Amino acid sequence: MAFVASVHAKAIDLIKWSLDMTTAAGSGHPTSAASLAHLVTVLMYTHMRYDPACPDHPAADRLVLSEGHACPIVYAAAADLGLAVGKGPEHRRPMTRDDALRLRAIDSEIDGHPNPAEGFPFFPAATGSLGQGLSIANGLALAARLDGLDKRIFCLIGDGESREGQIWEAVDFLMDHHLTAVCPIFNCNAYGQSDAVSPQQTPDVTAAKLRAAGMAVRVIDGHNPREIQRTLEVHASHAYNPTAKPFAIVAQTVKGWGFPSVLGSNSHGKPATEAEKVQALEALDAMAKHLGAALTKGDLRRPPVPAVEVPRPQPAQEAPSFHEALQRCGQEGVLDKGAMAPRRAYGVALRALGHAYPHLVALDADVRNSTYSETFLHDETLRERFFECRIAEQNMLSCAGGLAAGGKLPFVSTFGKFLVRAYDQLEMGLISRFNLKLVGSHVGVSLAADGPSQMALSDVAFFRALSTVRTHEGQPLLYLLQPADAYAAYALTVAMAAHEGPCYLRTLRPDVPFLYNGATAFPLGGHHVLAEGHDLCIIAAGYMVHEARKALPVLKEQGIAATLVDLYSLPFDDVAILELAQENHGQVLTVEDNYGAGMGSAVADALALHGGTYTLIQMYVRQIPKSGRTPDEVLRSLQLAASDIVHTAVSMLDVASR
Amino acid sequence: MAFVASVHAKAIDLIKWSLDMTTAAGSGHPTSAASLAHLVTVLMYTHMRYDPACPDHPAADRLVLSEGHACPIVYAAAADLGLAVGKGPEHRRPMTRDDALRLRAIDSEIDGHPNPAEGFPFFPAATGSLGQGLSIANGLALAARLDGLDKRIFCLIGDGESREGQIWEAVDFLMDHHLTAVCPIFNCNAYGQSDAVSPQQTPDVTAAKLRAAGMAVRVIDGHNPREIQRTLEVHASHAYNPTAKPFAIVAQTVKGWGFPSVLGSNSHGKPATEAEKVQALEALDAMAKHLGAALTKGDLRRPPVPAVEVPRPQPAQEAPSFHEALQRCGQEGVLDKGAMAPRRAYGVALRALGHAYPHLVALDADVRNSTYSETFLHDETLRERFFECRIAEQNMLSCAGGLAAGGKLPFVSTFGKFLVRAYDQLEMGLISRFNLKLVGSHVGVSLAADGPSQMALSDVAFFRALSTVRTHEGQPLLYLLQPADAYAAYALTVAMAAHEGPCYLRTLRPDVPFLYNGATAFPLGGHHVLAEGHDLCIIAAGYMVHEARKALPVLKEQGIAATLVDLYSLPFDDVAILELAQENHGQVLTVEDNYGAGMGSAVADALALHGGTYTLIQMYVRQIPKSGRTPDEVLRSLQLAASDIVHTAVSMLDVASR
Repeated sequence: MAFVASVHAKAIDLIKWSLDMTTAAGSGHPTSAASLAHLVTVLMYTHMRYDPACPDHPAADRLVLSEGHACPIVYAAAADLGLAVGKGPEHRRPMTRDDALRLRAIDSEIDGHPNPAEGFPFFPAATGSLGQGLSIANGLALAARLDGLDKRIFCLIGDGESREGQIWEAVDFLMDHHLTAVCPIFNCNAYGQSDAVSPQQTPDVTAAKLRAAGMAVRVIDGHNPREIQRTLEVHASHAYNPTAKPFAIVAQTVKGWGFPSVLGSNSHGKPATEAEKVQALEALDAMAKHLGAALTKGDLRRPPVPAVEVPRPQPAQEAPSFHEALQRCGQEGVLDKGAMAPRRAYGVALRALGHAYPHLVALDADVRNSTYSETFLHDETLRERFFECRIAEQNMLSCAGGLAAGGKLPFVSTFGKFLVRAYDQLEMGLISRFNLKLVGSHVGVSLAADGPSQMALSDVAFFRALSTVRTHEGQPLLYLLQPADAYAAYALTVAMAAHEGPCYLRTLRPDVPFLYNGATAFPLGGHHVLAEGHDLCIIAAGYMVHEARKALPVLKEQGIAATLVDLYSLPFDDVAILELAQENHGQVLTVEDNYGAGMGSAVADALALHGGTYTLIQMYVRQIPKSGRTPDEVLRSLQLAASDIVHTAVSMLDVASR
Repeated sequence: MAFVASVHAKAIDLIKWSLDMTTAAGSGHPTSAASLAHLVTVLMYTHMRYDPACPDHPAADRLVLSEGHACPIVYAAAADLGLAVGKGPEHRRPMTRDDALRLRAIDSEIDGHPNPAEGFPFFPAATGSLGQGLSIANGLALAARLDGLDKRIFCLIGDGESREGQIWEAVDFLMDHHLTAVCPIFNCNAYGQSDAVSPQQTPDVTAAKLRAAGMAVRVIDGHNPREIQRTLEVHASHAYNPTAKPFAIVAQTVKGWGFPSVLGSNSHGKPATEAEKVQALEALDAMAKHLGAALTKGDLRRPPVPAVEVPRPQPAQEAPSFHEALQRCGQEGVLDKGAMAPRRAYGVALRALGHAYPHLVALDADVRNSTYSETFLHDETLRERFFECRIAEQNMLSCAGGLAAGGKLPFVSTFGKFLVRAYDQLEMGLISRFNLKLVGSHVGVSLAADGPSQMALSDVAFFRALSTVRTHEGQPLLYLLQPADAYAAYALTVAMAAHEGPCYLRTLRPDVPFLYNGATAFPLGGHHVLAEGHDLCIIAAGYMVHEARKALPVLKEQGIAATLVDLYSLPFDDVAILELAQENHGQVLTVEDNYGAGMGSAVADALALHGGTYTLIQMYVRQIPKSGRTPDEVLRSLQLAASDIVHTAVSMLDVASR
């Protein structure tokens, strides 16, 4: 029974530390932490294979703490085990108890919720917005499988949290891909933040749901060391058996285990006062005595990290030209038509990049024949790196995060409208500093006939907000890219693969005429001047570049020589745009087919910051659109057609009065 | 067998119409439509209780088409039955076959996906972004229960779509609230858009999942008229039996039923060519013959709408003053402290408004003790109008939409960060023109210790995009409201209840000093000038109003007389803000604790549109924040503290060189 006594002793010790840490911080979740004490002790001290000095080693088992608020229990173990902490590999050092007591301080590596980028690499991903961990675990498992690594991914999920539908998207995905390496552990401590969990989230119902989804399940006492240990061993036996069912654990636990009389199960997100802490520590001592808790040296031993060969990242090759890539897909004929849908060029690029980047992976959500990510899938040599996520965008995005955490370069495609579904998951991925490439197709109103439920209209504003953030290196956190033709779409897809950092590419549904050629360069942050004038600077993006182009000859007839800028990138080169505005007497007209707060507003930011005299009129979608049979019909209904651009330009310059 | 023969005949007829409509439109989903033909026929011709002239009558049964792309089959029935169409009650007329053939045209009431606001009131809500219908049905059922109406809500859900986690959030919610009036019907036609559905979405697995969640389930042949009819009767028996289990139907169907050899099951979102249509019609005729389809007059009869008394909407009363509302909650003592968290004032307002508005309902997602929506719940006379949605924001938002469709006024609260989860659902609610009131708490960085996973930072940009849209009446589609103190939070909550249209209120976690009093008015679109200067116009919102206020005396010492504006509303009065800028020599500094593209950028839009000479420097969150133990720590780390405002203002005006 030495093992049992030792686990109890260690678990109680970690709970005490969690109480200390949260009281020192003045906030945090000691009761949730306590409910996980035994599970975390058995996992981190006896079961997981990892090296404290390098907990993010590619071959090491990983722990995703989906219920991020319970992190103090992991921090306590990390401090005890001397796990590496430090922002960036060069600053790593063993964590100490003093580190733990700096929980949540502004200069601490130990953030309020799991946040590896601040210096705690044991966690593979930021969590805290609930329901995302199992999807991340799925992504890590896929990455490991691609690399031939047999590591296991443990995921601790709260019972209240398992109400999030994303958890069940993740379970279906895990089953689709037979990810036996993932070990979902549901921590059923019976309480959420504001109340007891619903009867729909009891251990029995959760187990029944998992079984209905096809998993093998065992319901255990989450404070029984031996039961935990044995059940983890059952998981191991499933993990390495290709014919076994994926296996999940449902653990019944107690919120505030060991001190329920002090901070009851109803307590959440509240640290103990100093007086309560004294009481809680006493209660824990009594519990230790009652259980015969006693730590014997050597009882808690971790298996070594498997001495496997970790595949070395293969160097990326240069991507071929668009023409060459088209040839390789047998699509070169498309160039003769003079027009091509940018989404289709994206597919061609994705396939070419699949060959150039051995670690590139592609994900889609049952619209691969619309986004053209299927071009990648249809290449026999690439298809094992394509993951069909079905109609479940949240799981797709977090799974992409897990793939990124596992060293892969994920390209995630779906309709721009449906990506909205996963904005929270994206934000969590950005906190993790994952190098995510998102592609939203069918953006703006040019898809027309399907109506507003399928149109991405607020996405430019949302991604623009993210593009105003800078990394620690001073780079934009994210680039928003809007190719206006197929050449631009190809080149920008290549550029986003080469760029170290998240990007969002907006692709268009309709065929659009070529504006560029294979020699045109598309640096991130750039733009192209398509016409040079001196009366008015028209700045457009995406589909609206074509409408603006149609307006140019009509404007010329009216005596207006307009400059036309294809502003395909946010952020952009402020100085260059200001110069173009100045060359046009400060008269600027922006045109976009999404809601406001988008590209035009970014131009307004630049003009207003500069402080000169400018006039900027923004044309954008000012009503909720409806279906129309053609893009033209819809643009006219929104007063965004070429004729509306002409009309606005003429009124703006008051040409009649000249 | 006359019933069976008649249903077959009608179903085949509707499929033919669907083929006509989609071919005429040049787009659409005839194969999905065909898979629903028998279910829709039995529902709309024989089972549902509704009046074609008033399909949105409060007592009528409702049909939510969650898989919105299948709408042509419903439009076909509507044209046949002469259901009312028309934008606004005054334009209603019976739908004709010609109307149906105008599917997806810009001037048609028959949008590409269900879109009641364009003139098709049979649908209670816009759908088309998948997975949301069952949540809407839940909301409709809750509204009916509050009004004592025994109507039933049918919800058709695709099998591919049932991969969306939100469906399973909705199932749990349905069980929690025992919504037997809701009849979920899973249309298992075995194919998604790009491929066959996953083995996780077969009829058997779906049925097992529903049973695990506690529902009674029957798996049926969705093209067997008698089986459909009998199973709907079983649902009726459950619906009116308070001890019965909620009941769901899993229907096995065929995508492209009746013409699989023409447009195979793999076909999705593609209309038949004229040639294919001829073939398909032939195949359908052969099928009709094979099945002995024959319409006998009188066989398909609908039951009447129950002749129940629909409760009349009770008139709203005036909301009490903040002081009076505090007294009613026994919280008047808080005023003596000189500070109060705006989120707490929101709770007080919500409770007061619960009494003033008999149709107000409140929803929260397990953070009611943080958002303070619990103040409403704790009032015994209001608690039946409070719905705890647990940790499932997507279902919460769509459920609120259903409540709005049922005539209720929903206030939806959770952390601003977690509302991001439901942005797509919100957008769908806006397409439906639902009068939704959203409250996001813990916004910006002032919650500090919990770290970035809990901070709403992109929300201002997202909601600002929506606020740039106008309704048909020229009003802002949505107001974004940022109260800086408790008085403002109370007044703005009252104002948003009175306003006919969606609003988003951002509430702060920390206690903040009072800036206003009970006499201060807070019209939507307004602002307050807190200090009048002439050197610099500082415009701040939310928590940053307090930081900017701290900066004022220091600036004064440096010889800078600054104007301070609390810009609590987006959109705002452009002219008034321009005047304030002009009074300060065009020097403007905006301060907000969220990412860019927010309030400051809205000010840039206004300045740039006006065309004068202005300089605008925007201070906002330019890095991903991390945990800090106090708001001050975090603000300093982001260079957003009062001292940073001073520093920026001094550099901007180049005071040293004066």
